Amino acid sequence: MSLLVVGSVAIDSIETPTDRRDDVLGGSAVHFSVAASYFTSVQLVGVVGEDWPAEHTELLKSRGICTDGLKIEPGGKTFRWTGRYEPNMNDRETLEVHLNVFENFDPILPDEYKRSEFVFLANGSPIVQMKVLDQVTGPRLTMADTMDLWINIQRDELMQLLKRIDGLVLNDSEAKLLTGDENLVRAGHAVREMGPKFVVIKKGEHGAMFFSERETYVMPAYPTPDVIDPTGAGDSFGGGMLGYLAEKGEFDPQSLKKAIAYGTVTASFCVEDFSLQRMKQISRRDLDQRLADYQKMLSF
Amino acid sequence: MSLLVVGSVAIDSIETPTDRRDDVLGGSAVHFSVAASYFTSVQLVGVVGEDWPAEHTELLKSRGICTDGLKIEPGGKTFRWTGRYEPNMNDRETLEVHLNVFENFDPILPDEYKRSEFVFLANGSPIVQMKVLDQVTGPRLTMADTMDLWINIQRDELMQLLKRIDGLVLNDSEAKLLTGDENLVRAGHAVREMGPKFVVIKKGEHGAMFFSERETYVMPAYPTPDVIDPTGAGDSFGGGMLGYLAEKGEFDPQSLKKAIAYGTVTASFCVEDFSLQRMKQISRRDLDQRLADYQKMLSF
Repeated sequence: MSLLVVGSVAIDSIETPTDRRDDVLGGSAVHFSVAASYFTSVQLVGVVGEDWPAEHTELLKSRGICTDGLKIEPGGKTFRWTGRYEPNMNDRETLEVHLNVFENFDPILPDEYKRSEFVFLANGSPIVQMKVLDQVTGPRLTMADTMDLWINIQRDELMQLLKRIDGLVLNDSEAKLLTGDENLVRAGHAVREMGPKFVVIKKGEHGAMFFSERETYVMPAYPTPDVIDPTGAGDSFGGGMLGYLAEKGEFDPQSLKKAIAYGTVTASFCVEDFSLQRMKQISRRDLDQRLADYQKMLSF
Repeated sequence: MSLLVVGSVAIDSIETPTDRRDDVLGGSAVHFSVAASYFTSVQLVGVVGEDWPAEHTELLKSRGICTDGLKIEPGGKTFRWTGRYEPNMNDRETLEVHLNVFENFDPILPDEYKRSEFVFLANGSPIVQMKVLDQVTGPRLTMADTMDLWINIQRDELMQLLKRIDGLVLNDSEAKLLTGDENLVRAGHAVREMGPKFVVIKKGEHGAMFFSERETYVMPAYPTPDVIDPTGAGDSFGGGMLGYLAEKGEFDPQSLKKAIAYGTVTASFCVEDFSLQRMKQISRRDLDQRLADYQKMLSF
């Protein structure tokens, strides 16, 4: 089934303890889209500037992603992010952010996107995220991501958003910030009580936690020795997760758990090289093979 | 089958963000013994001072633990540790350490302990740990724990120990310190190449990782909302793990994985109250029930 994603499209410069890449393709909606494209047809809404290299659009199209909703802003510059990873490859420092055309991002959905049955609101202002919800007509499942910035400066709007979505994904530190509780089990349920039917807390190299009214569980990250660049891992997780749900067309508890497993293995490929280098190389068969390994790993 | 544990027996004072307890029963060999006692008969070797309350020995005995190897040092004082937990309940600060009689701990095994088939060398100097190995006659499985102190001041001796044991358990920060590698997957295998057949890296609230020549896997912690006092969780993990292996009398790959699952759920009970308060209340049935929940949690 169709899957709509709205979020940032960016050009990243990334420094790790041993290497660096400048001006590579990034952004939450990009990482999400490519990950989800292994499961279902994806419709992307975002904005870039005139500096946007056409090859990036070609890459997205080569994955079957519809880019009709990717607006090129005349005279504008694309959102740019520069970051540096700590030696543990889990913590990072933002060195530079130039929002550029993303600062006034006002997503207008092409008509054919409005009936998308699965919707992902990638990280962005809750005001913008709600503008997307205003345009879609009865999606079956909506999920959103958020970050510390919005928790700090648009908490009221975020609270409104939480009452309008089915699922929220956020990082462990963000869950603690939003609830004031350092215990993630309690924090996850506290976020759920703010509105969404389910909450997924992403813990980076430590995996992900799931919370619904009846369920609490943790899934570890897939242990890969090849962590080259964690940028986009969280969005790849979301893309693998919601991509699988859209493919299956269901979101009962067992489907949600399998979706989290797919999100986990999808993210484990993302981190194995810079930007989308590793993701470009893999096939659905690779994802299925790693999912089988992961399933075996957790069986006793 | 019989399980021998040699290590610290202590009196702890513990401060958490919301509560504190003074002069409670603690020590690595104590937490290990009580955890393992749900699975097999345990023989404890340790040393305490004249200040040791007889009720603590009674508690150990009530769990079927043989305390013939617990020496009371005339005129001595018991090892005391005072610590404070950070709000995240994962990091802690040692406020005071008085080794007292543990400083010159020279474990002498009662004759009937020397033929123990399963041996756990709880955290202690590798020199002392090797003295135990010198006394046992052909155990089937030996496991040891270690800590940053020994990595820093007795690295050569630790390296000798690693060549004489089957399995090592250590914390994530200690694995990084020992190998200089921030990637735990690589670090785990690097420690294994120092000698032991398998290595278990404990990640506290994030679970545990297992490494053998043919296997690499991660198991998450059991998600409990009731983290009151994490002291002893790592030793309870070891006790549940090796206790199950000693009960089963086997340590093939599938038994090892199930042992890690048992270690995980045993530790999850330990943290639910101060000292051994929670562990004292549970039965084997509680462990089995939580193991079943944990197994279900990881199935998709």
